[in-house]
Amino acid sequence: MHTDLVAALDIGGTKIAGALVDGGGRLLVRAQRPTPARQDGETVMRAVAEVLGELSASPLWDRAGAVGIGSAGPVDASAGTVSPVNVPGWRDFPLVDRVRTVTEGLPVELIGDGVAITAAEHWQGAARGHDNALCMVVSTGVGGGLVLGGRLHPGPTGNAGHIGHISVDLDGDPCPCGARGCVERIASGPNIARRALERGWRPGPDGDTSAAAVAAAARAGDPVAVASFERAARALAAGIAATATLVEIDIAVIGGGVGKAGDVLFAPLRKALTDYATLSFVRRLTVVPARMGTDAGLVGAAAAALTRTSGTTAASR
Amino acid sequence: MHTDLVAALDIGGTKIAGALVDGGGRLLVRAQRPTPARQDGETVMRAVAEVLGELSASPLWDRAGAVGIGSAGPVDASAGTVSPVNVPGWRDFPLVDRVRTVTEGLPVELIGDGVAITAAEHWQGAARGHDNALCMVVSTGVGGGLVLGGRLHPGPTGNAGHIGHISVDLDGDPCPCGARGCVERIASGPNIARRALERGWRPGPDGDTSAAAVAAAARAGDPVAVASFERAARALAAGIAATATLVEIDIAVIGGGVGKAGDVLFAPLRKALTDYATLSFVRRLTVVPARMGTDAGLVGAAAAALTRTSGTTAASR
Repeated sequence: MHTDLVAALDIGGTKIAGALVDGGGRLLVRAQRPTPARQDGETVMRAVAEVLGELSASPLWDRAGAVGIGSAGPVDASAGTVSPVNVPGWRDFPLVDRVRTVTEGLPVELIGDGVAITAAEHWQGAARGHDNALCMVVSTGVGGGLVLGGRLHPGPTGNAGHIGHISVDLDGDPCPCGARGCVERIASGPNIARRALERGWRPGPDGDTSAAAVAAAARAGDPVAVASFERAARALAAGIAATATLVEIDIAVIGGGVGKAGDVLFAPLRKALTDYATLSFVRRLTVVPARMGTDAGLVGAAAAALTRTSGTTAASR
Repeated sequence: MHTDLVAALDIGGTKIAGALVDGGGRLLVRAQRPTPARQDGETVMRAVAEVLGELSASPLWDRAGAVGIGSAGPVDASAGTVSPVNVPGWRDFPLVDRVRTVTEGLPVELIGDGVAITAAEHWQGAARGHDNALCMVVSTGVGGGLVLGGRLHPGPTGNAGHIGHISVDLDGDPCPCGARGCVERIASGPNIARRALERGWRPGPDGDTSAAAVAAAARAGDPVAVASFERAARALAAGIAATATLVEIDIAVIGGGVGKAGDVLFAPLRKALTDYATLSFVRRLTVVPARMGTDAGLVGAAAAALTRTSGTTAASR
């Protein structure tokens, strides 16, 4: 049988998306269900099976040679299990085995969602052509992934690149992860908004207190809003510089809602990077916005599966 | 010609050491010169040439198939140049070309000294058998290197693993590198001693104000000395946890003078690691003292050259 496609799953706390994807990264068939995140683990699994069932009803299904899964973390690729923070019914849930059963034995490749986004940006987006890259999602949380030496670096458990939970302020505010001063604790959307509100920023008549509203206020010149984005930029810069100093990346790609803030974020971020990325081998580091859209997770999961089965995507070179 | 040996060079601010090394990591012939660090670049190069000349006078020289160099950084392996902070006469000095000329065309492999130490610990020391490791030197400065997926990860320029200059305190004290709150700025030997002195620790009758003297005072129960090591341990823990969170390592190896402090360092370090290494995939991380001695740089430089030429050292598997 000619298996030139893969099935891709993007599993988050809000939705479970699936697609059949070809070797060029095109999504040929799609399926989606809301994530029953507050229900028991079997109910969540049933939603995954429904997505796969819808895909397998397609005449193209017979051409699928593998399944790639990008899941909210933490994941454990070595054990084939997932424990997404926002899906309490899944703790060490044997997702790889269960999906293999549903798909009657197809090989399954599991990576964290930050790693999946990275695979997508490297294959088709802003990190294309870069052999050493950090790709990040800055939104409700802060996640990421790494490309090293031209290849995706998921790490043994599929969680590498988890930049949101490195501490850049060792005496800083406690983070829900248990540490202090994590990048996410300072730079995530909710933390940008919280800090602006604490320092006296007030939302407009619509009552919108999102980071996007703070970004709009910053663009209009509100100094408290500007300062809150500058602080987030500083934490992101320290984290990106740390990553470059540790593994030598030459580009950092920033996506997610906060990544869409534009110059309000990128101008102070580029300035702060010159403060923290000081050694000769990290000074040429550039920071750019992500290019992939909402399908990044599916495209990245497909890239991981294609790399595993054929070694032929750009993400593997 | 049977070339089963390599020539190794370990270039630091104090001495230039050389050896002929076999495939088992044994140093068969040695040579050494003081580094004329304050003199012009050609004088420093002459000392390197003398070390190589002494090695090449050995009847074993004909069996050397490559040269491995571990140099004080920053280095630029892609350009073949070095700019050691403590050797001002060498700035973008074309060391690889010059050594190739002296050795009549042998292939030359250049890595930073932290990467060399790491290659040695992975081949024969405390990181042996670990596919994902961080090896550090904590002494006058703080350096390091990474093993990822079973292989040395020098990065494109040979500087990866430079943990001493990641910021763990983004608002912290200025570091000579230009950033703030770097691991080295808090945890190096001179900074441990400086902090103890600033907080009221006083040396014994011998006037010894080294970090080793602070360690001795800490072992004797001096609370200021204990606190200074605890602070260093916290910065090291934040840096090690950041590294594990970014690239998934399962062991951190600590060498150098401060690494020899024993429980005064390792007890608070292991405690602080539980504060910062919080995500599921980094919780099993262990920290151990280095095992290689003063020859680590030579052994590691040899490992890099052997890996390049034959792919057969443990460091390459």
